[in-house]
Amino acid sequence: MTSTTRADCVRRDEKDPLAGFRSEFLLPEGLVYLDGNSLGALPAAAPGRIAKTVEREWGERLVASWNEAGWWDKPRTLGAQVAPLVGAAPHEVVVGDGTSANLFKALVAALRLNPERPVVLGESGNFPTDLYVTEGVAEIMGAVERRVDPDNPAALSGALAAGDIAVLLLSHVDYRTGTLRDMARITRLAHTNGALVVWDLCHSAGAVPVELAACGADFAVGCTYKYLNAGPGAPSFSFVAERHHAVARQPITGWHGHARPFDFSAEYAPAEGASRFLSGSQPVVAAAALEASLEVWQRVDLGLLRKKSLALTELFIELTETAGLELVTPREPERRGSQVSLRHPEGYAMVQALIERGVVGDFRAPDVLRFGFAPLYLSYADVFDAAAALVEVVRSGEWHDPRFAVSRTVT
Amino acid sequence: MTSTTRADCVRRDEKDPLAGFRSEFLLPEGLVYLDGNSLGALPAAAPGRIAKTVEREWGERLVASWNEAGWWDKPRTLGAQVAPLVGAAPHEVVVGDGTSANLFKALVAALRLNPERPVVLGESGNFPTDLYVTEGVAEIMGAVERRVDPDNPAALSGALAAGDIAVLLLSHVDYRTGTLRDMARITRLAHTNGALVVWDLCHSAGAVPVELAACGADFAVGCTYKYLNAGPGAPSFSFVAERHHAVARQPITGWHGHARPFDFSAEYAPAEGASRFLSGSQPVVAAAALEASLEVWQRVDLGLLRKKSLALTELFIELTETAGLELVTPREPERRGSQVSLRHPEGYAMVQALIERGVVGDFRAPDVLRFGFAPLYLSYADVFDAAAALVEVVRSGEWHDPRFAVSRTVT
Repeated sequence: MTSTTRADCVRRDEKDPLAGFRSEFLLPEGLVYLDGNSLGALPAAAPGRIAKTVEREWGERLVASWNEAGWWDKPRTLGAQVAPLVGAAPHEVVVGDGTSANLFKALVAALRLNPERPVVLGESGNFPTDLYVTEGVAEIMGAVERRVDPDNPAALSGALAAGDIAVLLLSHVDYRTGTLRDMARITRLAHTNGALVVWDLCHSAGAVPVELAACGADFAVGCTYKYLNAGPGAPSFSFVAERHHAVARQPITGWHGHARPFDFSAEYAPAEGASRFLSGSQPVVAAAALEASLEVWQRVDLGLLRKKSLALTELFIELTETAGLELVTPREPERRGSQVSLRHPEGYAMVQALIERGVVGDFRAPDVLRFGFAPLYLSYADVFDAAAALVEVVRSGEWHDPRFAVSRTVT
Repeated sequence: MTSTTRADCVRRDEKDPLAGFRSEFLLPEGLVYLDGNSLGALPAAAPGRIAKTVEREWGERLVASWNEAGWWDKPRTLGAQVAPLVGAAPHEVVVGDGTSANLFKALVAALRLNPERPVVLGESGNFPTDLYVTEGVAEIMGAVERRVDPDNPAALSGALAAGDIAVLLLSHVDYRTGTLRDMARITRLAHTNGALVVWDLCHSAGAVPVELAACGADFAVGCTYKYLNAGPGAPSFSFVAERHHAVARQPITGWHGHARPFDFSAEYAPAEGASRFLSGSQPVVAAAALEASLEVWQRVDLGLLRKKSLALTELFIELTETAGLELVTPREPERRGSQVSLRHPEGYAMVQALIERGVVGDFRAPDVLRFGFAPLYLSYADVFDAAAALVEVVRSGEWHDPRFAVSRTVT
């Protein structure tokens, strides 16, 4: 039960130290966008930055821009800007390739660092690409795949205690439930049991503070087009802990991962640092949007971000309690990402009806209504309006309209 | 010896059936750009197409664009537009990931189709990424790497006759010499000897007609940012011959390569057709430039393209004969890509001096001056001017200027 009014929310917005960031994103008038955990909003500076890259750097300076405009070094310069958002040193992160390819690289590298152990431990409910890539890695490496529910502490401890786990792959925040895992505790537990850990940060980078180095993480992979606002399909990033730099070997050994690419040597020699996780050329035009976004992110206080994120999700949970949907996301703040998931068998139709009212969330099969809260461009008033709309959609039964019948959705 | 004058060239331009395409590309006034084999020129329609994707599709429609704007299917729709340029059926080509990752996938798939044979045969002078990725594949697959000079017919026949070659990886056009390989003959020879073939089309797609299906090719990978003008680091494409569709298995088994991704199934099942070579999300903003370029390419007669390409390279060879540089590219038209390479120990400085004169070519270690001829935006008069500038650079000795000393260059 809550008595929070819209006026209360407007007052909170007036005092919100992050409120100024809203103007750095372009969003359609009147839309409440709760799907930034799928595709982040467009940074206001991105169109100009992209146009400069396309028209001036590519159009006018052509190949000269590989050096002049820093194209060649983008995977490293952008990686260095992602680093503080995930608690890493600048040389521990590179940007390039997609999340699936980077998961593949990290898992193979981890298996090679732990060659006496035959098992990759994944999580039963992970995002499909994590599951599928793990299958692919297990097959090509002759390893065995096992799965566990990481939110069941006894099950996780037991699985790790088996003593044959080479590497554990976990999502820091579960894409479906929004559960935030304790990176420090789990990494420690894995290490104690002789396993390395690959963290998937797709739903946590830019959503919650991430402390890879402090937690002793080995490898991590993350998405830039969700909370990091780099645009559809923008390149992913890879973290390689410094202690593994001299020895970690990933298998897609392309030219850009070479120690001395301009020697055009006939043999491969891996580059220093996280650069050895690079393979080939990266989409520079896509990187321009990431660059615009990361300039905003350099000014964000992640402590304030987390505080606002929890306040927004807490508010949404409170305000929708009367709707009669089951809360899937943990009620304890320390176990919650920047997301609220609710369950209802007719969730798909409800999400469609809500979109019709100008509130964009999404649906994850079989029955999850999923709402992402990007603290940089969402206000408390937005959350109030979204919750009110959801309560009204459920109450009115307007989701019964056949227009809202099942179709496919995209992450 | 030649007596071709600039006026002759202007007359040839007046009769050139491809001359109209020049206006579909934006190039700086006064520049002669002979580096389209490294980074193609900007299509005039690309900035507008990119802005639409960024501002309208991403900025206003957000996640809805995955379906509405066809983002989800871009790897296939763009692949279908690349297909006619490489002699493939629409469902045999997908666009996504970088060239290095795609080479990795194709080589692993080929090895899996030929499991009794332990050897990957590469070419000794191939582009570094091809060499390095082959090393990486050999290691992870427990295969052996061997290299051969494919332009030495006896050596190639001998290497294939060994009887233990699972797959041959060749560049259709050599990046350094511009030598065009006989795809039909070599593919036949490989098949006769029980080997599959992966063709690297980076320097031939958009440069010469490619007939993958007619030649019986198994797999191919190609670049879109050279002759196909899709912008720096734009996604690569993969060709998978239809006869391998049901059985070819690549190892980076991500969500986008799944048969029914929206089932969110816990197990991987490869998609139909070339789609099984996809892994994760692709950079949609980068794809917008490719889309603009491919719309131009759909109107190009590849026979006319080849005719003009040979006329331009022939003209350049003739006009630079007196410069005293050694011709590296084959003199026989049927063995020549859309490129002329010349050799000189001081080639690096000469290329820099030439760039200073507004003629952009590039240099490939240790001693190759490399000039690419993109028939869609180069005129005969351009080639005359470029050749005259090169002859003058060499004659004058202006390349001795210390400003032109060695630095790094990018492919």
